[in-house]
Amino acid sequence: MDVLFQDITIVTMNPLEPVLEHAYLGTQCDKIVYVDTKKPEEPAKKVISGKGHVLIPGLVNAHTHIAMTALRGYADDQTLTTWLFDKILPAEARLTGDMVYHCARLGMLEAIASGTTAICDMYFSAPQIALAASELGIRAHVGNVPLETGEGFNLADGSISDTYELLTRFAEDPLITVFTGVHAVHNSNPSVWSWVNGVADKYNLPFCMHMSETAEDVDSSFRKFGKTPTAALEAAKLFHHPTVAAHCVHLTDEDIAIMREYGVTAASCPVSNLKLASGIAPLTKLKEAGVNIALGTDGVASNNNLDMFEEMKLSVLLQKNLTGDAAALSAYDALYFATVGGSVALGRGETCGRLMTGFDADIVMLDFTAPHLNPCHHVISNLVYAARGSDVELTMVRGRILYENRQFTVADPQKVIADANSLVASVFRS
Amino acid sequence: MDVLFQDITIVTMNPLEPVLEHAYLGTQCDKIVYVDTKKPEEPAKKVISGKGHVLIPGLVNAHTHIAMTALRGYADDQTLTTWLFDKILPAEARLTGDMVYHCARLGMLEAIASGTTAICDMYFSAPQIALAASELGIRAHVGNVPLETGEGFNLADGSISDTYELLTRFAEDPLITVFTGVHAVHNSNPSVWSWVNGVADKYNLPFCMHMSETAEDVDSSFRKFGKTPTAALEAAKLFHHPTVAAHCVHLTDEDIAIMREYGVTAASCPVSNLKLASGIAPLTKLKEAGVNIALGTDGVASNNNLDMFEEMKLSVLLQKNLTGDAAALSAYDALYFATVGGSVALGRGETCGRLMTGFDADIVMLDFTAPHLNPCHHVISNLVYAARGSDVELTMVRGRILYENRQFTVADPQKVIADANSLVASVFRS
Repeated sequence: MDVLFQDITIVTMNPLEPVLEHAYLGTQCDKIVYVDTKKPEEPAKKVISGKGHVLIPGLVNAHTHIAMTALRGYADDQTLTTWLFDKILPAEARLTGDMVYHCARLGMLEAIASGTTAICDMYFSAPQIALAASELGIRAHVGNVPLETGEGFNLADGSISDTYELLTRFAEDPLITVFTGVHAVHNSNPSVWSWVNGVADKYNLPFCMHMSETAEDVDSSFRKFGKTPTAALEAAKLFHHPTVAAHCVHLTDEDIAIMREYGVTAASCPVSNLKLASGIAPLTKLKEAGVNIALGTDGVASNNNLDMFEEMKLSVLLQKNLTGDAAALSAYDALYFATVGGSVALGRGETCGRLMTGFDADIVMLDFTAPHLNPCHHVISNLVYAARGSDVELTMVRGRILYENRQFTVADPQKVIADANSLVASVFRS
Repeated sequence: MDVLFQDITIVTMNPLEPVLEHAYLGTQCDKIVYVDTKKPEEPAKKVISGKGHVLIPGLVNAHTHIAMTALRGYADDQTLTTWLFDKILPAEARLTGDMVYHCARLGMLEAIASGTTAICDMYFSAPQIALAASELGIRAHVGNVPLETGEGFNLADGSISDTYELLTRFAEDPLITVFTGVHAVHNSNPSVWSWVNGVADKYNLPFCMHMSETAEDVDSSFRKFGKTPTAALEAAKLFHHPTVAAHCVHLTDEDIAIMREYGVTAASCPVSNLKLASGIAPLTKLKEAGVNIALGTDGVASNNNLDMFEEMKLSVLLQKNLTGDAAALSAYDALYFATVGGSVALGRGETCGRLMTGFDADIVMLDFTAPHLNPCHHVISNLVYAARGSDVELTMVRGRILYENRQFTVADPQKVIADANSLVASVFRS
């Protein structure tokens, strides 16, 4: 085998044996080939001692706009309308493809260093984001979806050409998958839905969209279509393809039943939903209904980081407060959303999200020797409620180590940071 | 001067010049003696280069039970009643003074490493906590307050003897201040209030208590005294001494007016209040009313860490959602609560909480060169919304460096962790 982690605590997310102590995990090429509490007989090219460390499946950031690192802290503490229309949209209009590429690289280093092995990213210049992911070795589910702006709807906004470029240029790249979709119901229309449905049918693509993020999104959908966003999308047959719906804050019981029926994933972004005062997604109800749940950071302009450990902790803490029941959801649920739930969302539930033989080697190792992770009565509790992204010491995707001993192996971070900072300064401080 | 930080970004919290770039800060003994953008002429014994780094005033954890590190993750995801009565109280009954000392040391290392320079700690065996703080060099505002248990009220529970021991043993220690108070209104009574008022009068002590943490606390106060907890404490003249009231989740407008009138600090614990489904404190209203606000982690059994950066971020994010206004409170407000507000709470508003000449040298330096802190459009935004406790690289209290280059200078962390873990294992896994 290629890499052997030895004498380590493994949080497998395998329901039969969720946590193994003093265990061994081996990888060969891009796969996990060994998971056991016995030492394997076969030798390994590289052995990593795991004493005081914990292995978890790589985290999936199921909704982000990773190139928005350009706008980290650019517009905080404003009303949603001011934030979006006066600040973010005008700023995004100034982002070139080159900036998207370099700022995506910056965001991907941040994601890798905090244990994220896959992202689902919706943005313009999507081929630049796929290129950055391919180079840095992180998985990316990417798409540029049509967006109706104040000037009306324009299919020449780059979403069509980006979709075709992604499909041709990254067809053979195992790290990159392509989606289509709509930005949201309130800023699209039936002719767009028809177009994306045609593309999805022809190329067998999944969908991503924002759905019911704010109360106003729902009101707007009612005004335009007489239905909730979920019902409008169902009527347009958009859920016939595997779908990741980001946010899902304002849902009716009927919406939840539709999501369950079609297997639509709710990609919840708790930090962003608080920061923009959008509300709290009903994750407890969604889980009870059997809807798949994943977690995302959203873009850093409304977060302002890409640390999935914050999303895990907050996702369940908010449910306790929302339901008034401190027993609502659990640390295990949070970790499930960020690993298994995220992998299911991206169509990889059979190969990613668990540390089991035959699964892809998307693996994160955390250092559990710091004061804030001791004592350790329950490893999953410490992972979700006490750990931070900075406790990640190693990140591996498809068997390739991207980050080890808290150092990047795939890029010089100081150069990536300097490139992004310099482009951002040239546009925003000139 | 003793220590000079040079070419560094200084977040002073001085309203006249909140942020200085490429600046210099010098300390002499326990004081800040120089803050300017010009290099000082006087040489320094030790020079710390601050390129890419940020200085902030030390953070104040205004409500914790730091020895509860023993119970980190011991009882998660349970209803408040099960958590408290079936798990935490029986577990605490097994904690010896020796365990309190060693688990307090563990918690203090965690606090120091994440930028906390002062804690306000309410627990039994309080002299052990003061001893740990005095040895490790962190400021501690400590007290053991009477608590009425199911078996009735017992002033021989150690709170009296601990108070007298603290007052004699740590009288000359500049790091230690002593408070008295009550655990909460619902588990005390007028005879206890009268006793603590007498002690506070005689020794000129401030007060700490839990106040209106849950809706049930308020109901119970109404049943027993016909008043809200705040009104009951006012009627008992408990606010005649400087008071830190932890939680303050369920307040009436009249309660807020009383707090304002007497200068009572609200020590808000947003993570703990979510985790135990207690609610969200009305910080926006409290700020508008002019009530001093500080932040705390509470004990790690309901958190489960001591990272004040989480409290800062969450404190303002929750207000945006609570008020439905994304412009409610700001990153600056959060940093103010954790520095100036906390220092005012502990009676040190004139000497701590700001980086200004003549103030005590309680200083934290953060590394701002990591991907998640770039670009930096606004330093206070990145501090509150993007940074984590793990970005702290140096912590100084009263001019003494406790933590430098992410290494402790005051104790061997592996020994502290091993001592605490071993005692915890002997009690809880035997």
